[in-house]
Order: sequence, then structure tokens, then C-alpha cells
Amino acid sequence: MTSPPDPGSGVLPRPGPTTRVRIREISGSAVRDRRDDLATEEPLEVRLTGADSGRRTVAITMRTPGHDFELAAGFLHGEGIAGPHDIAAISYCTDDDVLPEARYNTVTVRLEGPIPDLPALERHFLTSSACGVCGSASLEVLRDRCSPLLPDDITISPAVLYGLPDTLRKAQGVFGKTGGLHAAGLFTAEGELLALREDVGRHNAVDKLVGWASMTGHLPLAGHVLMVSGRASYEIMQKALTAGIPAVCAVSAPSSLAVDLAREFGMTLIGFLRGERCNVYAGEERIPRPPL
Amino acid sequence: MTSPPDPGSGVLPRPGPTTRVRIREISGSAVRDRRDDLATEEPLEVRLTGADSGRRTVAITMRTPGHDFELAAGFLHGEGIAGPHDIAAISYCTDDDVLPEARYNTVTVRLEGPIPDLPALERHFLTSSACGVCGSASLEVLRDRCSPLLPDDITISPAVLYGLPDTLRKAQGVFGKTGGLHAAGLFTAEGELLALREDVGRHNAVDKLVGWASMTGHLPLAGHVLMVSGRASYEIMQKALTAGIPAVCAVSAPSSLAVDLAREFGMTLIGFLRGERCNVYAGEERIPRPPL
Repeated sequence: MTSPPDPGSGVLPRPGPTTRVRIREISGSAVRDRRDDLATEEPLEVRLTGADSGRRTVAITMRTPGHDFELAAGFLHGEGIAGPHDIAAISYCTDDDVLPEARYNTVTVRLEGPIPDLPALERHFLTSSACGVCGSASLEVLRDRCSPLLPDDITISPAVLYGLPDTLRKAQGVFGKTGGLHAAGLFTAEGELLALREDVGRHNAVDKLVGWASMTGHLPLAGHVLMVSGRASYEIMQKALTAGIPAVCAVSAPSSLAVDLAREFGMTLIGFLRGERCNVYAGEERIPRPPL
Repeated sequence: MTSPPDPGSGVLPRPGPTTRVRIREISGSAVRDRRDDLATEEPLEVRLTGADSGRRTVAITMRTPGHDFELAAGFLHGEGIAGPHDIAAISYCTDDDVLPEARYNTVTVRLEGPIPDLPALERHFLTSSACGVCGSASLEVLRDRCSPLLPDDITISPAVLYGLPDTLRKAQGVFGKTGGLHAAGLFTAEGELLALREDVGRHNAVDKLVGWASMTGHLPLAGHVLMVSGRASYEIMQKALTAGIPAVCAVSAPSSLAVDLAREFGMTLIGFLRGERCNVYAGEERIPRPPL
């Protein structure tokens, strides 16, 4: 198996594994604006080409750039599509239909033989974007469906924020005893817990909350706050946006694309919400400065 | 929107959100067999039926049973497929092609109108099993591709186990500073770290490791140990199995289906590996009792 060099001239800079952003750190009554490094999240499309001139997209997944050829090879092996001896070459894609900004997000795996018969096997999500696969294209797809949220719909005091993780944890109760579940809670801007859902998949916990709101006539969820037990990814932010939720809080870090989405659509995004501190990554106008 | 009652007689018991299993807890030099509760992980298939008699599967996702109608409604809303006013009814599926054991894992959403045009939108994975969607069917699919691993290929001493999380954390280095990344490490049975990969998606970190092994001629990975920074799900175990890795360690909890898979295929599965303690969920014959 050989790996030809990356596409060269005329191609935009390769996305790195981390992305630097400006954030606002709130700790007790102290507020500090500083830089922070986030894990980069960008889509990766894996394409197969066969000795019979066949071609096919087999997966589009959100990933952190780096070791992309390994990701493609490992995915194909795990799904039983192609082992090490089935692969002739792996390269970034320079096909004419791939825009420069998507070239490091598209990997082509050339097989020694023809493309095998495959069941429908698209993974995680499949944008219908015709303009290639990149973070900004992922946001573009949403722009067709969603308007930016109003910046002045709610304010959430730091005191309310600091109370959310504890409220969520206590409400998990018996179900949380397994230690194996993601939790998502829907709160009012005053910190009242309206609904809590848990799941092995974080995205499912959020889907359940939005489904609860849908089935009980609460959509859109303007003025509400979503709190998730783990990290905040593009997928979580997309679900909050389409439900009309203006503010998302996470116990852990957001990804770069989660922050991009929040800023693009006027959402507030808070991470590392633990004890009496948090980082505000977007929409800080909804968070008043704490009293001194 | 109405929700007809669940399917009744002739249907197997409904899976609960937690599953009780027997485990071996090792703490320092103490060994204790006890019961433990795991988060249940089972596939859910979401089907649409339209007023035009159309029908289509739109998603199959691993989830924790409970609030399944909400999960379906929330997923459809988030993807822009159907809002609250588009849905006539949601029910568990009693179609003839659904086996009794899969009926609580198949939700049918009846739309008020016809099924809209949809891009390819299958989510997370799509089994090609014709026998319906349930945990045992998910294992059945793997049985066609994978043989059980040999029980006597390696032993891993508790002392080696206790050292893995620290080795993984130290190797994360600068990249780990974002706090937003899952790590997966490939170790020898003696605890030597061979490769480490990180990603916003845990499954991607494992794909990258397996891809590294594929591209460097290390497959199959008999005799090796995979350590992941978070939880162990069906998907992680499936990737380890197809790479021939006999032992998987996780910092947090495994799901019920991860344990089922490990036991079915002769794998060792260790969770809550922190400090000088761990839980052994499967394959305890590879872990010798610690010296007193």
C-alpha cells in the first residue's frame, strides 16, 4: 500500500488537530478574556475507487483532522469492506468536484480490485450539500433551515449556571448509578429543570428531550437552556439550534465546529461548567458579569 | 399526535434501561465477584409510514431503551424530516417482518402526509441483518465475519492494568490539553504503549489505531490490549474484535451490549480502570489474581 503525497499548490492550509479561539472565563466573580485551544472537528468523507472505475462514498463522519488515511483504512477494515491487502493507495482527493477547502476533508481509497457490494452504510450523518465536505459547508446546510436566534431573548446569571450541573446530577438518581450514561437536561433561564433524559449516546439523550418537547407542544424551545453531561459537538449544537434552544452548557469541552456553529447562529455556548467556574465560547451577551 | 399502546401479547419482555450482570471487582490485591448494573444498549430502528402507503427506514441507532417515541420524534425534528404537526401516530412495530424480540426496538412513525424526499440519511450503522433489529441480531452479523478469540493467548497482570491509564494520559501530551478529545491506546500485554490516537469521536480514535496497524502490517492484533479514555460501547468492541484484539480496557463503564459481545467472542472487557482498581466484565481468565 502506498500513500501519495498530499495535494499541493492551490490548496488551502491543512486543518490542524487544535483550533485557537478567544473565550471568556468566568470564575466566581472574576471575568477574564483569554485564548483557548479547542479540539478541531471537521467532516471527513471516505471515497472508494475500484479497479473497475467504480467510485462510491462509503462514510462521512465528524472527526479531528490528523491520521486521516489511518482513519479511512481502519474504518474500512472494521466494516469488513477492505483489508490491508485490498488497498492499492490512499490519498487526499483532488477531484474536480471537490472544492479546495474540502480537499483535506476528502480521502480516496483506491482498491486493488472492484468495489465490493455494500449495504447502505453511511455513517453518522450525510449532508446533502453539493459543495463538498467542510465545516463551513456543514453550517451552510443549516443556514437553509434555521435562522439565527435572537440575542436578547434571555439572560442567564452565573449563579444560575453554577447550579445546573448539580441539579442535573441529582436528578439522574437511580438511573445514573451505572456510570455509563450521558445525561441531557432542559432548563428554564432561571435554572428550573423541566426534563431530563439519559442514554448511552449523547445525541440520543438530546433527541429524547427534543422529542419530549415536540410531543408535549413545547417547540420551539426559545428561552431555554440545554445542559449536557459531556462534551459539546457539532451534532449537539445542531439539535439545539433546530429546536430553537439559545443556550447550551457542557460539563466538558466544546469542539471547534460547535463554537463556529454557536457564533454563526447567535447561540450561547458554555463549557467546563464545574463548581463556580465556566468558559463562555459564544454568545457572552446572554451572561451578565457576576456581581463583585 | 397519539401514541397507541405498546404491542401486547406474544411479545417478549420490554428491555429496561439497565441490565444486571455478574462481574469481578479487583481492588489492590482483593478480588470480589458481585452483581453490577449496566446501561442497556440496544439498536433502535425508526420507520416512517406515509399517507401514500409509503414506508421507509430512516435511522438505526444504538440507544438505551426508554422514551423511544421521543427519540424518534426528536430525531425526525432535528433532521428536518417531520415536525410535531406532521406526525399522526408513533407506535412500536408489529409488522410481520419484525421478530418478537425486535418489536421494542422498532418504532413506526405514521406521518399525516406522504414521506418526504430524503437524502441518504442512515445513522451510525446499518446492519444488513434480515432478521430484525436487536442486540442478538447485531452479534449474529458479526458471527458471520469473526471467530471467537482464543482464551489462552495472553494474560495481563493487575499491576500492568493499573499502569495503563497513566501511560495513556501522559502520552496524550500537548494534544490532550484541550480536554476535548477521546484517546485510544494500543498496548502490549506487558503494558508497553505501541500507538496512541485521539479524536473528538471515540470510534474514530479506534479506527485510526486499527488503520495504523493495517498500514504497518500489524493486523491481526492478537496478544494486544486496547485502552479507551471513556466508555466501552458495542461499536468499540466490534472494532476491537474485527482487528483481533483480545482485551479492551475503559476508564468508564461498558454498555450491556459491549459485555454481551465480549462474552460471545471470548474477549476480555475491563471497565472503571482507575487507580489500583477495575471491574472485569468478561474474559477474567486472562487476568490472574493479584498476589496477596
